[in-house]
Amino acid sequence: MIGLWLEAGRLAIREDLPAPAVAPGEALVRVRLAGICSTDLELVRGYYPFTGIPGHEFVGEVLSAPGADALVGARVVGEINAACGACPTCRAGSPGHCPQRTVLGISGRHGCLAERLALPIANLHPVPDALADEAAVFTEPLAAALVVRAAPGVRPLQPTDRVVLLGAGRLGQLLARSLARLGCELTVLARQPAQRARLEARGIRAVGSAEELAPRSADVVIEATGSPEGIALARRILRPRGTVILKSTYAGRVELDLSAFVVDELTIAGSRCGDFAPALELLASGALDPRDLIEARFPLREAVAAMEAAARPGALKVLVAP
Amino acid sequence: MIGLWLEAGRLAIREDLPAPAVAPGEALVRVRLAGICSTDLELVRGYYPFTGIPGHEFVGEVLSAPGADALVGARVVGEINAACGACPTCRAGSPGHCPQRTVLGISGRHGCLAERLALPIANLHPVPDALADEAAVFTEPLAAALVVRAAPGVRPLQPTDRVVLLGAGRLGQLLARSLARLGCELTVLARQPAQRARLEARGIRAVGSAEELAPRSADVVIEATGSPEGIALARRILRPRGTVILKSTYAGRVELDLSAFVVDELTIAGSRCGDFAPALELLASGALDPRDLIEARFPLREAVAAMEAAARPGALKVLVAP
Repeated sequence: MIGLWLEAGRLAIREDLPAPAVAPGEALVRVRLAGICSTDLELVRGYYPFTGIPGHEFVGEVLSAPGADALVGARVVGEINAACGACPTCRAGSPGHCPQRTVLGISGRHGCLAERLALPIANLHPVPDALADEAAVFTEPLAAALVVRAAPGVRPLQPTDRVVLLGAGRLGQLLARSLARLGCELTVLARQPAQRARLEARGIRAVGSAEELAPRSADVVIEATGSPEGIALARRILRPRGTVILKSTYAGRVELDLSAFVVDELTIAGSRCGDFAPALELLASGALDPRDLIEARFPLREAVAAMEAAARPGALKVLVAP
Repeated sequence: MIGLWLEAGRLAIREDLPAPAVAPGEALVRVRLAGICSTDLELVRGYYPFTGIPGHEFVGEVLSAPGADALVGARVVGEINAACGACPTCRAGSPGHCPQRTVLGISGRHGCLAERLALPIANLHPVPDALADEAAVFTEPLAAALVVRAAPGVRPLQPTDRVVLLGAGRLGQLLARSLARLGCELTVLARQPAQRARLEARGIRAVGSAEELAPRSADVVIEATGSPEGIALARRILRPRGTVILKSTYAGRVELDLSAFVVDELTIAGSRCGDFAPALELLASGALDPRDLIEARFPLREAVAAMEAAARPGALKVLVAP
C-alpha cells in the first residue's frame, strides 16, 4: 500500500508498504482523512525514536473487525494507545499508560498517514452520520484539549478561574475554544496577529506579548508553546498556589527554579491524551466546529509536502487524504 | 538583648541587640524555647539573602499585646508569615503568600533565636496549659508536615493511597508520623539505620535504598530530601498520573525531563507552610508526641554550637533556650 515512511529523520512516500498486520482483537481500517500534529513533526526532528508510518489523527472506514461485524463499513475515529489490557496499570483503569502499550504512529505501531491501519477494536468510536470527516478528524486533538478542564492530579477548572493560555497554534486554538466554553475568565497569549484575530472573532481575549499579562494573577496557566520560556512565564503570572498545566512536549531537559515553585506552592501538572467520547459528542452537537482551523489539504502522495506545510510557523491543521 | 546574629554567612552571639521594634497590631514576646530547622541552616549557606536574627520555630510568653490584653502572660506559638492584610492576595485568603509579607527569621523580620521577638497579634496561638514547651515548639514544623495531606492545588491524600516519603530527617520523621496517622500505605526511604529504627519502632515501613522501591507504583511521593536526585527518583517510582509533593527547598536551578512528566501525566506540587490550629490540636491531644525527636538543647549563648549540631548529617531537632 501507499504510505508516508519515516526513517532516521527522513520522510518519503513509499508505494511498497505491506498491508497492516492485524492482531487478534484488532480491526483493519481504511483511512479516509488524516491530520498532522506537532508530535508528528517532533518525531521527524528525532525527539522520539520512531521508524515507520507516522500519523495518529484520522477518520476511517472499518474494513474488517473479527467478532465485531456490525462495525464493518462504519466510519470511525480511534484512540491512539493500544494497551495490553492485563497489566496492573490497565487493570487500574489507565490503559493509556500501559507500559507495554503501542501508540498509533508514535511508538511500536504504524500510523495513519497511509491507506490503511490496524487498531484494537476496543479503541474505535463510530462517527455519527451527520459529522463530516473534516470535523471528525479533530476528535483526537480536541479530546487532548478538553482534558485540561479536569487534568489528572489537579482540581478541575472552575468557571470562576482566571485562566491564561500560552500559545495559539493548532492545539492552542482548540484549547482556547474548549476553555471559553467552560466560561472561565480566559486570556490567550497569541504572538501572531492572525492567531489573535481568530480568537477575538470568537469573543476570546487575546494579547500579543507577555508584558500584557499581569504578574501573580492567574489561577491556572495552560502551557501550549512547548518552550521552557513558557514555563518561566507561567511562574511569573501565576498567583501563589496556582497551577500550570503542561500541554506540550519539551525537547531535552528543562531547568526550573523549583524553590520558587515551593515558596509559592505552585503545582505543575502534565497532561496528554483525553477521552474521545466527550470530544466526539461536542463535535457532533455542532457546538464546537473546528473546520475553520483547516489550513490545507493534501493527497497522500504529497504527504511530505503536507508535513512541510504543517511545520511552517503559525500553520494550523494540515490534512492528508489517501 | 542577647541573640544570634547572621551576617554574610557568619553566625555570632551578640549581647548588644536592640529590643524588637513592635509595630501597631504586634505583640512583644519573650522566647521560652526555639527550634532549629533546615531552612535556618540554608540561610547560613546563603540560599536566601538574610541579615539579622534567624529562627522561626518558638514557644514564647506574651509581654505586651496592645488591644489584646488578655494575651499578656499567655504562652503562645506564632505563624511565621506577617502579611499586610490589605493586598489582593491577603483579601483572597492567602496571607501566607502576601507579596509584602515579612517572615520571622527568614525575610525582613528578626527571628526567634533571641530573648524577645515581635509578631502580629493575629499570628499568635495560645498554647494549652497541658502542652509542654518541648512539644509545642514543634507546632510550626508539624503544621508544615500535616499540610501535605491536603496540599494546595492537588487532590487530598486518601487512606488508600500508596505513599512513598523520601527523606527521614527532622521534617521527614514528622511527615512520616502525619502520614501514618492518615492510614495510607506508607513507605519511607530512610538512608540511615537509626532513622529506619525510629520509624519501624512506630510500625512505619522503612527501606534503606531506592532499589527497594518498586518502579511506577506509588500514587504519591513526598520529596523531603531537597536533592534533585529525589525528584528523579520520584519520577521513577510514581505510577502514571501520580503526584510528587515537594516539601523541601532546592538550591539553585533543577533540571527536569519535563516531557516524561507530560507523557506520564505526573503532577508536581510545591508545599510550604501549614495552618497552626490542627498541629496544635494534634500535639495537645497527645496523639502525636514529637519529643523523642529532640536531639539536644543548648542555652541561647551557645546558639552557634546549636546550629553546628543541627547541621550534622542525620541530626534531629536541636532546641535553644534563652
